[in-house]
Amino acid sequence: MRAINFGAGPATLPLEILTQVQEELLDWRGSGMSVMEISHRSTLFCDMLEDAEKDLRDLLSIPPSYHVLFLGFPSRFQFSMIPKSFLRTSADYLVTGFWSQLAHHEANKKMPVRQLNDASDLNKDADYFYYTPNETLSGIAYAGVPKVGDVPLVADMTSCLLSMPLNVSEYDLIFAGTQKNIAPAGVTLVIISDAFLHKATPQIETLCDYRTHVQYKSNYATPPTFTLYMAGLMFKWLHSQGGLISIHDNNLKKANLLYDFIDGSDFYCSKVPKVQRSLSNVVFTLRDDALTDPFLQAATHENLVGLKGHRKVGGCRASLYNAMPLECVETLIAFMVDFALRNEGA
Amino acid sequence: MRAINFGAGPATLPLEILTQVQEELLDWRGSGMSVMEISHRSTLFCDMLEDAEKDLRDLLSIPPSYHVLFLGFPSRFQFSMIPKSFLRTSADYLVTGFWSQLAHHEANKKMPVRQLNDASDLNKDADYFYYTPNETLSGIAYAGVPKVGDVPLVADMTSCLLSMPLNVSEYDLIFAGTQKNIAPAGVTLVIISDAFLHKATPQIETLCDYRTHVQYKSNYATPPTFTLYMAGLMFKWLHSQGGLISIHDNNLKKANLLYDFIDGSDFYCSKVPKVQRSLSNVVFTLRDDALTDPFLQAATHENLVGLKGHRKVGGCRASLYNAMPLECVETLIAFMVDFALRNEGA
Repeated sequence: MRAINFGAGPATLPLEILTQVQEELLDWRGSGMSVMEISHRSTLFCDMLEDAEKDLRDLLSIPPSYHVLFLGFPSRFQFSMIPKSFLRTSADYLVTGFWSQLAHHEANKKMPVRQLNDASDLNKDADYFYYTPNETLSGIAYAGVPKVGDVPLVADMTSCLLSMPLNVSEYDLIFAGTQKNIAPAGVTLVIISDAFLHKATPQIETLCDYRTHVQYKSNYATPPTFTLYMAGLMFKWLHSQGGLISIHDNNLKKANLLYDFIDGSDFYCSKVPKVQRSLSNVVFTLRDDALTDPFLQAATHENLVGLKGHRKVGGCRASLYNAMPLECVETLIAFMVDFALRNEGA
Repeated sequence: MRAINFGAGPATLPLEILTQVQEELLDWRGSGMSVMEISHRSTLFCDMLEDAEKDLRDLLSIPPSYHVLFLGFPSRFQFSMIPKSFLRTSADYLVTGFWSQLAHHEANKKMPVRQLNDASDLNKDADYFYYTPNETLSGIAYAGVPKVGDVPLVADMTSCLLSMPLNVSEYDLIFAGTQKNIAPAGVTLVIISDAFLHKATPQIETLCDYRTHVQYKSNYATPPTFTLYMAGLMFKWLHSQGGLISIHDNNLKKANLLYDFIDGSDFYCSKVPKVQRSLSNVVFTLRDDALTDPFLQAATHENLVGLKGHRKVGGCRASLYNAMPLECVETLIAFMVDFALRNEGA
């Protein structure tokens, strides 16, 4: 039986995509080879990669003045690569949770950078303004887009890219690991404006230079071909779901259903202020924390997995990425109702 | 029909492993999830990774004083990471082909390092001695192991690791991209002695520091879980094939069969001196270069693919990694005989 996987990433993928991957695993596009076995320089693979980029550009209406890069690095490596390339005198980091804190910490190792708690404190001469629109760990989303004027805006969208439409032109650099809403782990997607790219300090390490990846169309070193193939399938799946407006509607429905249920309950609790609530990661607690472990165990027993909160914060978290069907959120709520009934006043 | 894939990497994988992956793609180890969907912090995944390391340690008899790392970076990134961590005053690079040249070039960007054509010219005070035992592009292998005394020996084994037994204790750092003999592309395997690790300069970029990956058991940032799963399957497959002595015997048989045929032919030619011939990558030309393209086309027509030489050298190359069966080398030779007969004196 297929588990209902609320894990924060690597995360659930659409069953129909997994089935397609399974079907064509031994013979990709009539090549007689698995997609894993085919050369990254082959026409078949290069065409697929070009197609994937095109589909992504369509989904996000990415302007032609932006480059799309698929980097075979952990997304966290951007925490270093961004300051290496763009931090010369100062940068502002809006710290809203664990991941922005870690990014700030990593940049700080190069030179002191400011930590902001409020975007309005920004320094107009900063090399860039960095923020994390969705903090996966605490389930905190930034409402809207920080008003940064002419300061280049850099965003870690690892857990929210492709969950809703986006005005790419408000940003100068967007990045996202693939392991949440895009594909299996192994690739970092980067969308960078040509103007910002030109500001990058040339790097002595070839692979740390964004220009290398632009120049070689993400195919300088052998890329993680299988992950890219899956990203390509996912972009097509998003189109088949009606694109990002439709996906966003569905994500809103799923998240609202769960938040509304939690807010109406005396048993469960969301400590995140409504205006900051993440669509992707619904973080909640049981009012009686002693019931958290029994809750997680009972959930697993009912095939509802990945609900444990991050080890740094405890509690529970339900990640509702694009591939999580609305019905599964209903199943979760039904279980939560039942668990509460059985344990109220226990 | 399954293609016979002589590509240099990403490369052919054993059909039985691909079939297993296909079978368990939707439900890995009874989890109800694809291995791609499961958390990298789950017991199931961490156990698998530990098991994979153990199998690799058994295969190569890796001493306990060595660390095994699985890094989610392109293998080429080692060209930077090694000098960043270990180059303080000087290093010797034995340049035997394209890849060692590129590694030398990358190190040179940090500070001038020596390029050697002969290992005996080594500097006894070098921070390390770097070489590439198998040059994938030109099909040149280094016979034996350079005698470097107390100088730490660093080797790029991307296209030869696991093709034969190895005395790991002769080295201080071995690395290999997974895309040849190990798994799909996406991971770099690093084997590093604890003594050498202690010499590493601390890096300001957390992910460029080998110690980070040692400390977090290759699970600091989300690793490419699917590639690691496949590496684990491949290590078990190598054991099932009788381990590296048996694999080496088979690799010798395959390569000798092809080299002997080429040497006995007036139509094909290997320019690589016998003592330097690679087991993994058999590089050859047609004496009449005008026939190279027709040869490659006819081969593809016969389902023999990936035989085109690297764009930097031209000609032909048959990569005979572990997963290439002996019978397929025989099929290639039969085709080569036939093509020669049809085109001799053409």
